[in-house]
Amino acid sequence: MKHSSWVPIVGVMGPGDHCEPSNIEFARQIGIEIARQNWILLTGGRNVGVMEAASKGAKDAGGLTIGILPHADEELVSKFVDIPIFTEMGNARNNINVLTSWIVVICGIGPGTASELALAIKAEKPVILFKPDEATHKFAAKLGGDLIYLADEAIEVINIAKEFFHLT
Amino acid sequence: MKHSSWVPIVGVMGPGDHCEPSNIEFARQIGIEIARQNWILLTGGRNVGVMEAASKGAKDAGGLTIGILPHADEELVSKFVDIPIFTEMGNARNNINVLTSWIVVICGIGPGTASELALAIKAEKPVILFKPDEATHKFAAKLGGDLIYLADEAIEVINIAKEFFHLT
Amino acid sequence: MKHSSWVPIVGVMGPGDHCEPSNIEFARQIGIEIARQNWILLTGGRNVGVMEAASKGAKDAGGLTIGILPHADEELVSKFVDIPIFTEMGNARNNINVLTSWIVVICGIGPGTASELALAIKAEKPVILFKPDEATHKFAAKLGGDLIYLADEAIEVINIAKEFFHLT
Amino acid sequence: MKHSSWVPIVGVMGPGDHCEPSNIEFARQIGIEIARQNWILLTGGRNVGVMEAASKGAKDAGGLTIGILPHADEELVSKFVDIPIFTEMGNARNNINVLTSWIVVICGIGPGTASELALAIKAEKPVILFKPDEATHKFAAKLGGDLIYLADEAIEVINIAKEFFHLT
Repeated sequence: MKHSSWVPIVGVMGPGDHCEPSNIEFARQIGIEIARQNWILLTGGRNVGVMEAASKGAKDAGGLTIGILPHADEELVSKFVDIPIFTEMGNARNNINVLTSWIVVICGIGPGTASELALAIKAEKPVILFKPDEATHKFAAKLGGDLIYLADEAIEVINIAKEFFHLT
Repeated sequence: MKHSSWVPIVGVMGPGDHCEPSNIEFARQIGIEIARQNWILLTGGRNVGVMEAASKGAKDAGGLTIGILPHADEELVSKFVDIPIFTEMGNARNNINVLTSWIVVICGIGPGTASELALAIKAEKPVILFKPDEATHKFAAKLGGDLIYLADEAIEVINIAKEFFHLT
Repeated sequence: MKHSSWVPIVGVMGPGDHCEPSNIEFARQIGIEIARQNWILLTGGRNVGVMEAASKGAKDAGGLTIGILPHADEELVSKFVDIPIFTEMGNARNNINVLTSWIVVICGIGPGTASELALAIKAEKPVILFKPDEATHKFAAKLGGDLIYLADEAIEVINIAKEFFHLT
Repeated sequence: MKHSSWVPIVGVMGPGDHCEPSNIEFARQIGIEIARQNWILLTGGRNVGVMEAASKGAKDAGGLTIGILPHADEELVSKFVDIPIFTEMGNARNNINVLTSWIVVICGIGPGTASELALAIKAEKPVILFKPDEATHKFAAKLGGDLIYLADEAIEVINIAKEFFHLT
């Protein structure tokens, strides 16, 4: 059971490279909304793609941001990450990302993000997909069943999360 | 570049629980074929499901088997694993499975196996799917493109692998 | 180079079991002093021993506390940890503890803490030993040379840390 | 309990750099002796220092060698390693080294090796020190008590190991 003093941690996962603009913009907006709730944003911490955009959104709105880095290199951390956790364990750190998040938001898909989607389901975490392509949606639904949610707007993520956090 | 003295390592991944009999049987057969080539079989090492079946097949045919365990508990290792590697790192060990395998065979799907599928693609390893359902096939193709192969018979896996290992 | 927005993270490491009362008390006091500097306390996050004491000290003084857990079990987290990072990777998480800390304080010694001492030196982090026994002191000095400092009082840790953080 | 089909795995740990010639020579000899017993040698797998020397000794005597690599780079693997396990997790892989070894031999000391010494004791593995300096010996004895053995000759390691493996 979570301690009553804990603040919800929302993981926002997505590719570092080859991101679609809509995913970048959604990541930024969900970062803003997480900050507005005074929740904590967790990302993979790198200074690229969805990680950077979500962290920037959260910081612009005054939030607290954590990054779980795959390396131990300060130069490659987003400047919008307040608390960098250096793991030096490559993609094996993806499991820490999902175990630490109370709920996982997926913005765009690539192999690394797909591993986080799968590991989140393995850890029985709720997963919210932002406008997934059909192949991703069907695969996630097959693997995750009731754990899988869809969202088109950042505020929908907040509403789904509130239910899980018993804040409604 | 791989040293000329190295023996090919083929990873066979699949669920520990709720396995379909056809996946169990395929895992056993692919274990046999890997052993016949004098290659090394790598699995997640547990004494259940696809891991156990592939390891049994390889041992019955006189092969060498490695298991990369998520825990450090000798009681939960397949008795058909020759060399148990104890990681005590849960599902984060899935990344070791795919990094160490020269080629990855997927027999059935569940969240843990799906993370291995994704991490294998991330590591640019060839992935062979045994009779995947449509959702898994489409998602793997989307993520992995040319890295993804299909096989209905164990011998097909061997033939695909031989091409990658430049043994043809 | 560290971003100017980052807040110093001080790691306090020590045994979970068989702790001497003086180590527990020092851990509590160093937690208080870290909080007074508005720095972040990092520990192994468990609800026992030095981890619990340092976290309690920091929380009592209004600080922010991070715990890097070896498991994924909410029941075993100190209630004085604000941000639990769940790794599910056993003692391999000790490397994350030291990579993430800017400076490492050692309060008492046991095998797990000794691995953190060694990994901190490997990562070239400054290490401050609180009243070490002779064997620990000599071994640390041999391994770490100029990286090793001694402290008898919590305020000494702060003063040493300030020099490293260029805050003097 | 270990399966009766398992072959003993002996871990030989030591620095990659700045090795004393006596440690290199001992590592080579212990590699030879492990191979003569038809046991498996486990090292950190890199192509330097004690790792390289032990692996070369074992291969020269016809043994089987495993390397647990901190990276995923084939170029940096000892050519005397038969089975490279790629972890991509830096020094966190040191825990895998000791969990997988039945007994751990320490040839020389540095920060990485010291972490393996500590983690081996944490995992309650017997540890054999080759001619340790006084500081290392006293610290190991303090941490490990009855788990710590000394050896001056490679054959002594074999004799100690045989007792643990119930082969005497």
